[in-house]
Amino acid sequence: MRISELSRTSGVAVATIKYYLREGLLHEGQLTSATQAQYDESHVARLRLVRALIGVGGLSVAATREVLDQLDNPPESTHDLLGAAHRSLGPAVDEEVDTRAAESVLERLGWRVQGADRQAVRQLAAALAALEAADFPLPEDDVISYAHAMREIAEREVAGVPVESTEAAVRYMVLGTVLVEPLLLALRRLAQVDASARRYGTR
Amino acid sequence: MRISELSRTSGVAVATIKYYLREGLLHEGQLTSATQAQYDESHVARLRLVRALIGVGGLSVAATREVLDQLDNPPESTHDLLGAAHRSLGPAVDEEVDTRAAESVLERLGWRVQGADRQAVRQLAAALAALEAADFPLPEDDVISYAHAMREIAEREVAGVPVESTEAAVRYMVLGTVLVEPLLLALRRLAQVDASARRYGTR
Repeated sequence: MRISELSRTSGVAVATIKYYLREGLLHEGQLTSATQAQYDESHVARLRLVRALIGVGGLSVAATREVLDQLDNPPESTHDLLGAAHRSLGPAVDEEVDTRAAESVLERLGWRVQGADRQAVRQLAAALAALEAADFPLPEDDVISYAHAMREIAEREVAGVPVESTEAAVRYMVLGTVLVEPLLLALRRLAQVDASARRYGTR
Repeated sequence: MRISELSRTSGVAVATIKYYLREGLLHEGQLTSATQAQYDESHVARLRLVRALIGVGGLSVAATREVLDQLDNPPESTHDLLGAAHRSLGPAVDEEVDTRAAESVLERLGWRVQGADRQAVRQLAAALAALEAADFPLPEDDVISYAHAMREIAEREVAGVPVESTEAAVRYMVLGTVLVEPLLLALRRLAQVDASARRYGTR
């Protein structure tokens, strides 16, 4: 199909498609003349993915490019996938953040997160520091409760990683991280509303 | 204290403090002459809060102003607080998003979220739509499992809402929403790393 039809099929404006082509988020079509190219279903699928990552995922163009790059060139060890996925997904965290409180929580939990995933440790540290700075410190026991709830979720998720191909596994981990996060936060807010309605009543 | 000392005490640059004053994120000091004002501990505390909301919370200046406004002028019903907090916290979601899949999930859960909190329902709808668009649809049973995990968290959170003053309750709900979200996401990622290390081993 031509770019105009690709635009109609995918619902993405032609100018945006051209932008994604320039930025390397979308692979080039098959040139049929000096000024025309043909696109196929693979372009439609990739456009849907890019829109999801940038739209709800809230990723930048650079982060989206990194995620797509991982999907196209997956690392070899399944465990390494996660660290790579998390690193490219952000949010960016100050490398200088003090990680001692985070390390103490992780030690109490007995989680094996050495080496691979400093990015996520720094995210935890930054979150704890922000609570402290806002004069809204969480007791460590509350942090541990949150961690146990998240562990239950993560166990199920990791058990569900598809084993038939590395590509499927990367796709599952990257999209499962970036696209499920907004889902979890929306569900938490709705659960709070429900719990609050039951506790305080609605008028 | 003068603005220079406020800057030293809070670690926020003088230019940034002036910007926050202009933007209404920080209350004016007590004028002692035409060009000088005195600041006190209330300014230090407010600056810490603003930095936490904008820094880790990732709020815009406008959203931060709304959150502060709620803290300063809390709504009357405790249950209304939550809806107000969620509305100002974003992320902004297209009002036209199709909420049918989200409504179906909420109906199956039996959650009471009518009226108050369309914003969070739209967030759920947008998250489900993005998963679908990325060709990574979650079975409704998985969504329900996520919801049950979030419900456990929310029950504990709502039970912990302080009852001694509305101001304390608003503070708890607003900061508990915006500052705990990054904490939960960091814990989920770390829990995934731990679960993956136990399942696949690290090299």
